[in-house]
Amino acid sequence: MGAEVADRVFVPELRERLARSVRLAPVPLSGPLTAPESLAVLAGTEILVTGWECPPLTPEILAAAPRLRAVVHAAGSVKPMVTDAVWERGVVVSSAADANAAPVVAFTLAAVTFAAKGALSAAAGYADGWPAFAARAGADARVIGVIGASRIGRRVIAALRASDAGFRVLLTDPYVTPAEAAELGAELVPLPELCARSSIVTVHAPQLPETRGLVSAEMLRLIPDGGTLVNTARGSLVDTEALARECGSGRLDAFLDVTDPEPLPAGHALLRLPNVLVTPHVAGAQGSEVRRLGEFAVGEVERYVCGQPLRGRLLREDLPRLA
Amino acid sequence: MGAEVADRVFVPELRERLARSVRLAPVPLSGPLTAPESLAVLAGTEILVTGWECPPLTPEILAAAPRLRAVVHAAGSVKPMVTDAVWERGVVVSSAADANAAPVVAFTLAAVTFAAKGALSAAAGYADGWPAFAARAGADARVIGVIGASRIGRRVIAALRASDAGFRVLLTDPYVTPAEAAELGAELVPLPELCARSSIVTVHAPQLPETRGLVSAEMLRLIPDGGTLVNTARGSLVDTEALARECGSGRLDAFLDVTDPEPLPAGHALLRLPNVLVTPHVAGAQGSEVRRLGEFAVGEVERYVCGQPLRGRLLREDLPRLA
Repeated sequence: MGAEVADRVFVPELRERLARSVRLAPVPLSGPLTAPESLAVLAGTEILVTGWECPPLTPEILAAAPRLRAVVHAAGSVKPMVTDAVWERGVVVSSAADANAAPVVAFTLAAVTFAAKGALSAAAGYADGWPAFAARAGADARVIGVIGASRIGRRVIAALRASDAGFRVLLTDPYVTPAEAAELGAELVPLPELCARSSIVTVHAPQLPETRGLVSAEMLRLIPDGGTLVNTARGSLVDTEALARECGSGRLDAFLDVTDPEPLPAGHALLRLPNVLVTPHVAGAQGSEVRRLGEFAVGEVERYVCGQPLRGRLLREDLPRLA
Repeated sequence: MGAEVADRVFVPELRERLARSVRLAPVPLSGPLTAPESLAVLAGTEILVTGWECPPLTPEILAAAPRLRAVVHAAGSVKPMVTDAVWERGVVVSSAADANAAPVVAFTLAAVTFAAKGALSAAAGYADGWPAFAARAGADARVIGVIGASRIGRRVIAALRASDAGFRVLLTDPYVTPAEAAELGAELVPLPELCARSSIVTVHAPQLPETRGLVSAEMLRLIPDGGTLVNTARGSLVDTEALARECGSGRLDAFLDVTDPEPLPAGHALLRLPNVLVTPHVAGAQGSEVRRLGEFAVGEVERYVCGQPLRGRLLREDLPRLA
C-alpha cells in the first residue's frame, strides 16, 4: 500500500507490535511490486501484509515469492488482489473485513434512525411549513428490509433488533433459510415482498455480476410512498437512474454512501435533491478508523505465527458470496 | 389534549388498561378546561392525565377540581402547565420525559455518527471532488462535548461510552461534580474548554433564562475548524445568527432539530446551507413513538393507584434544572 495509507493503518505502536512477532522487511513495499527492490524483498517474504492499492498478486509476483505462505489484507475486499494463482498455490488469505464492518454498521444505523424520522423529507420540506402532528413519522414498529445477510447485514439486523423501537426486520438472501433468518431475528421473504412491505430498505449484498441492478426500477416502485433507500454496500446493486426518478418525484428519500458510477458526475440529479444525502464512500473505516484495519491485521499475523486459527480467513469457495 | 393527539398517545389498548385501574371520565377533556362540561368532569377528578396542548392549570381550574391529587403528564416538559398553584396544593406531578428520552437519544447519536464522518461537509463538497485519504474524518478517538448532564445528556454519554469508537467525552454542567462526571464516563470541564477541545458539541441543557444563548458566538468560535454542533434540546440555547455565520463560512457543520425562533423564517440562511441539516423538531417522540408517552402515563396511574412510587415524579425544587 502507499506510504501515506500505511502510516495511518500501521501506526508506530502497531509496527512495533508486528516487529515483535515477525522480522519486518526493511521498507514497506509499494507500487506494482515488480521493481527490483520489491522483488528482492518478496524473495524472502513468508507473510505478505497488504492493504488498499495493493496490485493483483499475479503469477509473476508469486513466482518471485517462493516462500509466501500467507496474505494478510489490512482492508475489506480481497478482490481483485487475490488472483486464482494465489489460491492455487495454497496461500492462506485473511481479510480485515470484520474490522471494517463496525463503522459501516454504525453509519447504516444512523441513516436508518434518520430515515425512521423522515428526517431528509422533513428537512427538505421545512420551508413549506411545519409538519402537522398526524404527518409525523416515528421509528416504532417500523418494517425495515435488509437485503443480504452479509457480515454487515447480520450486524445491522442484530442492532435493529436490539433497539427499543420494536422494528420488524425482513430479510432477502439466497443463501439463508427461513430458520436461519428467524434465528437472526428477521423474516425471510423474496425481494419483491421485502420492497413492498418495508418503509426503509437497506442494501448489504455483495457486488457480483448477478447482483448488478438487484434493486431495479421495478423493485424501487414497490417500496411504499414515503420510503427510504439506504445503500452503504456498493452502487452497482441499485439502478441509479431509477432511484433518481423516485427521489426526484419526492416519493422516496435516500441515503447513498455508494453510487454507480462512483463518483457521480458533477450535476447529477441525485446530488441536487434535498431529500437525498449522497456521501463520498465514507461509511467504512476512514481517518482515525483505519487503524482498526492495521490492528486486525497485526492480530492475524500474531495468530498465524502462533499457529492459531485466523479470524478473517477466507476460503476460495467463499468468494462468490463476499463483497 | 386534543382528540387527535389523545387517540395516538392513548391507543385503545392503553385506554382499556387505564379503565382497569381507574374510572375514566366519560369524555376526554380538551380546550381551555373552563367549559361547563369540563368543569363538571373536573369536579370529580382525582387524577388528571394531561398531554401536549394542555392549558396552564390555573387557580381557577384547580378550584374546580377539589379532589385532584395527581397530574400525570403524557409528554415531556410540564412547564408552563404546572403553575405555582398546583405545587401549593400539594398535587403530585409526574412527567413522561423519561419515555421521550430514548428517541431523542437515538436521533442525537445518529447525528453524532454522521458528524464523526464529516458526512454533511462531505456531501456538500461531493461535487467539488472526491475527498483524499488524508482528508477523511473517522469517529475513533473523537472528543465529543456534551453540554448538560440532563436525563438525555446522561444517556447520550452512556451510549457514546458504549460505542467501540473510543470516544472521549467532555461534559459541562453546573450541577455535576468532577467525581460524578467521571462516574458517568466524562471529564467535567468549563464550557469554553469543552468547545475548544471538542470536534462535536451536542446540547442537552434545559431551556431556562440563564441558559439562553449559552452557546454564544464566542463559544462557537472556540470549536475547532471542521467541528459540528448538534442541537436536539432547545433553540434558545444557541446563538442562531452566530451559528449561521460559522456554518455559512463552512467552518462548522450543524444538525439542528430545534432552532430559535422555531420554526426558522422561510429563507433563513441555516435552511439554505448544504452543511446544515435542519429538521422540524422531530427527535422526540412523534408518529408511532407517541404511544410510548401514553404507556408511561398509564404505568404511572397504575403505580399511583397501588401506592407505588412514581417513576416520573417531579418535585417543585427540580424545576429549575429541568427542560
